Amino acid sequence: MSEKPYTISQVAKMLGVSPSTVSRAMNNAPGVSDSVRKQILEFVDEIGYRPNTVAQSLSRGRSNMVALILGDIRNPFYADLAFGIQKALDTKGFIVTTFNSEYDYKKEKQFIQFAEQYNYSGIILVTVNSEEADKYLGHLDIPVLLVNRITKHYNGPLIVTDNFQAGYIAARHLINLGHKRIGFLAGQNKSSSASSQRFQGFQQALNNYQLDYHADYCLYDLDWRMNTGYQAAESIFSTPRETKQRPSAFLIANDLLALGFMNYCGEHGIRIPDDISIVSFDDIAYSSLHQIQLTTVSQHVETMSKEAADLMLQLLTDPPKEPKRVIIEPTLIVRNTTQHYQEP
Amino acid sequence: MSEKPYTISQVAKMLGVSPSTVSRAMNNAPGVSDSVRKQILEFVDEIGYRPNTVAQSLSRGRSNMVALILGDIRNPFYADLAFGIQKALDTKGFIVTTFNSEYDYKKEKQFIQFAEQYNYSGIILVTVNSEEADKYLGHLDIPVLLVNRITKHYNGPLIVTDNFQAGYIAARHLINLGHKRIGFLAGQNKSSSASSQRFQGFQQALNNYQLDYHADYCLYDLDWRMNTGYQAAESIFSTPRETKQRPSAFLIANDLLALGFMNYCGEHGIRIPDDISIVSFDDIAYSSLHQIQLTTVSQHVETMSKEAADLMLQLLTDPPKEPKRVIIEPTLIVRNTTQHYQEP
Repeated sequence: MSEKPYTISQVAKMLGVSPSTVSRAMNNAPGVSDSVRKQILEFVDEIGYRPNTVAQSLSRGRSNMVALILGDIRNPFYADLAFGIQKALDTKGFIVTTFNSEYDYKKEKQFIQFAEQYNYSGIILVTVNSEEADKYLGHLDIPVLLVNRITKHYNGPLIVTDNFQAGYIAARHLINLGHKRIGFLAGQNKSSSASSQRFQGFQQALNNYQLDYHADYCLYDLDWRMNTGYQAAESIFSTPRETKQRPSAFLIANDLLALGFMNYCGEHGIRIPDDISIVSFDDIAYSSLHQIQLTTVSQHVETMSKEAADLMLQLLTDPPKEPKRVIIEPTLIVRNTTQHYQEP
Repeated sequence: MSEKPYTISQVAKMLGVSPSTVSRAMNNAPGVSDSVRKQILEFVDEIGYRPNTVAQSLSRGRSNMVALILGDIRNPFYADLAFGIQKALDTKGFIVTTFNSEYDYKKEKQFIQFAEQYNYSGIILVTVNSEEADKYLGHLDIPVLLVNRITKHYNGPLIVTDNFQAGYIAARHLINLGHKRIGFLAGQNKSSSASSQRFQGFQQALNNYQLDYHADYCLYDLDWRMNTGYQAAESIFSTPRETKQRPSAFLIANDLLALGFMNYCGEHGIRIPDDISIVSFDDIAYSSLHQIQLTTVSQHVETMSKEAADLMLQLLTDPPKEPKRVIIEPTLIVRNTTQHYQEP
């Protein structure tokens, strides 16, 4: 630790100019001659003076910081999203800091308060959907952009995949392959609109094609981790059941759950797609590996992060009168984990 | 946006007490009776007053924020590290914000200055090794903890895997399997001590076992991404060469590069481990999937993040007189991508 840093007044005194001249010189603002500016910049560089940005942000009201609050950065979908948003806003002079809510609305609320207290400029939020969150989302003192989630009462700007459509096209793909007994490994439907809407799209497809929905083919409220997918497969395949009574295909709420599911199947000689077809959601990089080749529905994370950065920038610089809502069309990527239904 | 928030003076005035009484009540500090404290807390809750933490951090000198600066959050090794550190420091009341340097020391420097200017309490840094970085690491006005990197002149606290040892045991494993022509896909040796030390460990093993080091078996300065591993395999296998002149095994600088390498091999009928053995470094979750089963050297990321959080906490609360240096022993995890050398 070095000694206490200089204040702008001390620097101004040493130079024999006013504090505002120092400030103008350092911020490249008009009202200072080139030679004085040069002299000041050389001097502050020499003594290592740096303006106290906290004091500046206090006096200006807002900083150049944007908070990105999401569930779990270990999910590659969110790592890609965070990286894309950071990179895009970095070029515009904004610093994006990332927070993991761990899908807990209390943590989410704490981070939101933190961002307000530290004069963040805005918040990009993959909210934990909950009644509580819906309450506080309405009255925040800071621009908020919802990403990958939709809530009942929030009517501000948002960017979201059409997850109903995603669930629908995934189910339709399996139905077109002749599958009739289709299960669903659902994410946390209560706390994630992405999961609940995919589930609704799945149910709609069953309806449209006059197939029965079997609650006992479905597992609910799975967190989004690989290991949970492994355990789900374990609970499905360790229950003794006639093969004809078992689903021949599954929709799985995200790629991480699907990778865990495939891992269990691989270890236990259950062949994908020969014994079970699976289709999931996200299209993370690992899903396209030759050794995996997971059929999945892409959410176009690059588009999503670009749109999120653009829209946040707009909110910060020139907010539109009506909140903008961007809906991204999902795309089915057919790989090797789905095939035509075969009589067992 | 709502109206301007209350200041503590306004709140104190409304309550008919002094600002310091409000502050003491809200910070649970002594000097306020229980009944007054209760009254104050109820009132501030009712009017929605929140203390301006920026002003507080200014007056106290430091905040409860810790900056974590790393290369690329999309690498699961760093996502795990970041998540573990955040979770551990969160329980101690510190907020950890993550920044991606993209392995660019200019960005790293910019983030460090940002952390200083915003009164961060400390920095956990996976530095881009460079002469420039080594210069500024010596004189920062903020506690710094180096993680997973070691530099020439920095002699402050750090936590690092013994990467020389990691390179050595990986190479020894291949040598013990009878491989004599061993290549290395090296990371960015100039900007990463992890990569350069693994490479030195590899060379040491070759020396100890009297095997030749062939520069033309090695590729250098690969960034750490999956796609780069794919391209490396492409450049190796598309060069016409007698099989006997080709390495029979490769060390690969991290798991992501190895996954990309395996992807290329899978797509082009090159069998691992029958045609080529590979061993890499990190042990990310995807490496243990049944479909992958990558032999790799674990850096024990959970231990590393726990140690990093503990050591940072110590630096912030009760700094040891001598900088603490924690060296983590790496562990070879043998899976299915390595086997005994077979005459082609």
